This record gives sequence, C-alpha cells and structure tokens, in this order.
Amino acid sequence: MSLTLHGYWRSSAAYRVRLALGLKGLTYHDVPHDLRVGAQRAPEFRALQPQGLVPVLEGPDGALIQSPAILEWLEERYPTPPLLPRELGARATVRAMAAIVACDIHPTNNLRVLTRLRTDLNADEAMIRGWIAHWIAEGFAALETMIRHHGRGFAYGDAPTLADCHVLPQVYNAERFAVDLTPYPATVASARRLHDRVPQAAPEAQGDAG
Amino acid sequence: MSLTLHGYWRSSAAYRVRLALGLKGLTYHDVPHDLRVGAQRAPEFRALQPQGLVPVLEGPDGALIQSPAILEWLEERYPTPPLLPRELGARATVRAMAAIVACDIHPTNNLRVLTRLRTDLNADEAMIRGWIAHWIAEGFAALETMIRHHGRGFAYGDAPTLADCHVLPQVYNAERFAVDLTPYPATVASARRLHDRVPQAAPEAQGDAG
Repeated sequence: MSLTLHGYWRSSAAYRVRLALGLKGLTYHDVPHDLRVGAQRAPEFRALQPQGLVPVLEGPDGALIQSPAILEWLEERYPTPPLLPRELGARATVRAMAAIVACDIHPTNNLRVLTRLRTDLNADEAMIRGWIAHWIAEGFAALETMIRHHGRGFAYGDAPTLADCHVLPQVYNAERFAVDLTPYPATVASARRLHDRVPQAAPEAQGDAG
Repeated sequence: MSLTLHGYWRSSAAYRVRLALGLKGLTYHDVPHDLRVGAQRAPEFRALQPQGLVPVLEGPDGALIQSPAILEWLEERYPTPPLLPRELGARATVRAMAAIVACDIHPTNNLRVLTRLRTDLNADEAMIRGWIAHWIAEGFAALETMIRHHGRGFAYGDAPTLADCHVLPQVYNAERFAVDLTPYPATVASARRLHDRVPQAAPEAQGDAG
C-alpha cells in the first residue's frame, strides 16, 4: 500500500520523517501544507491530526501522527535497513539522543512556540534569538558528548539511526537561526553525512520550498 | 540485576518512569536529587546524564537517560505486562499520545523553561500561568479527542500503556498549575484510573516529597 506524507518543506518534524523514508528506500506521495498561512488548521486536516500539526503519514495502518511515533512505526513496519541497533542499551541511547532533540530542543524553537513568545510574552527578536540559542546550546552540548562517545561517523556507530533523523533537522534549524555550531563538530559532521546520504529529504529539495 | 532510579518527587519525567516500573512490578533503589537546589547539576550526576536532568535509570544496560527512551527500554527488557499493544497502528497511536505530552506539552512547562521565561523574557506570573494553560489546553484537546476514540478506561483500550504513563504526570502538573480540566473528562478519568493502579508512584508518596 502506498504512503502519503503530509508535511511542509521547512518543518523539522516532517524532515525527520522524510529522512527515515529515504533511508528505508520508501517512496511516498507528498502533500504539502503551507504553515505560513495556517493550512494545517483547516478542518479537513484536523480530521487527520487533531492538533493541526504536520507531519501526518498515511499508510497501511491509517493516518499516523507525531514524528517520533511515525519513525518507530516505520522501523517496525519496514525493518530493513534498521534504524535502531539490536542491543537494548544501544537502542536506549539512540532513542535518548532522539528525545534530546524532540523533547528538549525542538519544542522550544518551533514556529508556534516562537509565535506565542512574540504575541503573549512580548518577546522582541533579540530575546527570541537568545532563547533559541540557549536551548540549542544546552541540548547540543549533551549530544556532542554522546556522539563523541558513541558515534563513528553517524550519531551512534557507523550507520544512520533514528538519532540522526532527529539531529540533522535540528542542525538545519540551528543554521537557519544562525546559531554558532563550532562547539559541536561531531554533531555537525554526523548531520552532514546524513544530508549527503539522503539529499532528496532536504528542505530545499521539496516541491513547496521557497 | 537491580535498578536504581535517579529522580525527584515532582519531576514529571521521573514520575513517568516510576509508573512504568510500578506497572511492570519492578522494584528499584530510589536516589532523589533536589532540583530546587540544583543537585542535578553536580559533576558526578552530569557524568551519568550530560544534560544534568532527571530521570536516570541505572540497570543491566548501564545508565539510561530521557524518559521516553527509558520507557521503551523497560518495555523491551521486561515485556510483561506489555505497555504497548501488539498491532502496529495501535502502537503508533499510543506512542503519538505519549509524544503529545513529551514533545508538545511538557517541554513548555517544565521547571527550567519556566525559569528561563522569568529571567530572560521578563515574564510575570500572570504571563506564566497563561503560557502554561495555553499549551496544556492545546495538547489536552487533542488527547481528549484521541482518548474518547481509542480509550476504554485507559488512554488506549482497557489496559495501561506508555500513553497513560505520560498522561497522568501531565494531569498532575496541570492540577498543580490550577489549569481547568473540565473540558477533558476522558483524559482525567484515565489518569485517575492509573493513579489508583500505581499509587506508590505518585509524587506525594515519594520519600523526598515536601
């Protein structure tokens, strides 16, 4: 059965899913939703995703939401090539790296949170930049320690995992916000390697980019 | 091999892990770290957790960090009773509910983020309360829709899952912040049921509570 990805070129969470699809060699039908005009809040989209957020992946098990859940589903439904190591402690480490991005870094700098900081907390652009840089620095410092310890080209070992599918979009975001990444060379190198492995997943390569 | 949980009674992420440990009937050695005095930032703790965050679960596969990763590890290492359904689409739905809490709600109202809103963005307490209430309402509205559709006593079906292990601590947090939960009766009912199933995991039942 075919796969349909509802996304947006610049959505970091949709980018995670595109990377996993690419690594697993899966083709999909792409349905972009322009977050800048609030297309994801349309009732027909909310019927798929009650939060009104991208991504949604439609496939043989229905409409799946939340990128960490979608990535675990891809791993279980299409196990080859694996994006998790076999050993249980290693799996936990890979998932921890993914969670540092998904739970600690990205939630502080996604579009809807930044919008709210501006509208409800009266944050100016200098405050916003400081806020973004702070949380990226906190998370990347930990990731750098872990990738130096566990990585051999990729974030964990010498093959891409779910961790890399989270790290590369966060590096992309950090560069977009002009955050200094020089303290995190292992993190950036692993992201570059995944970018080169799956260039078709990059934001700029999407049909709705611009 | 024995399990040691590094936590804090009021940490929502540590509470998730206590719930999963309780549901699986696992005993553990409890090591509290007082977040109010920054105990989690001590060098010896950062050697276990480079972010300086609780929880950490030490066990047969080493020191594991990040509660979503720890919960998946518990499920793989101690599969009985299961905290994920068997069918792949159902597993994705349970994980999506967990991610709504872990990635979309909780990151906006954890202690370090609220502290930063106060110090760097000059937010006053009325702004903080509005901020917390907004993100809880956004996430709980979606969870309520999903739990009404999928739940039969618990968040998904009639047995507790990883989703419930996330939802109950977030309901606890919402009550602590005096958020109106009347629009989310199915969510609150599922949380109450898990609380009654694993009362020993509750914040108030911890040795460091107070």
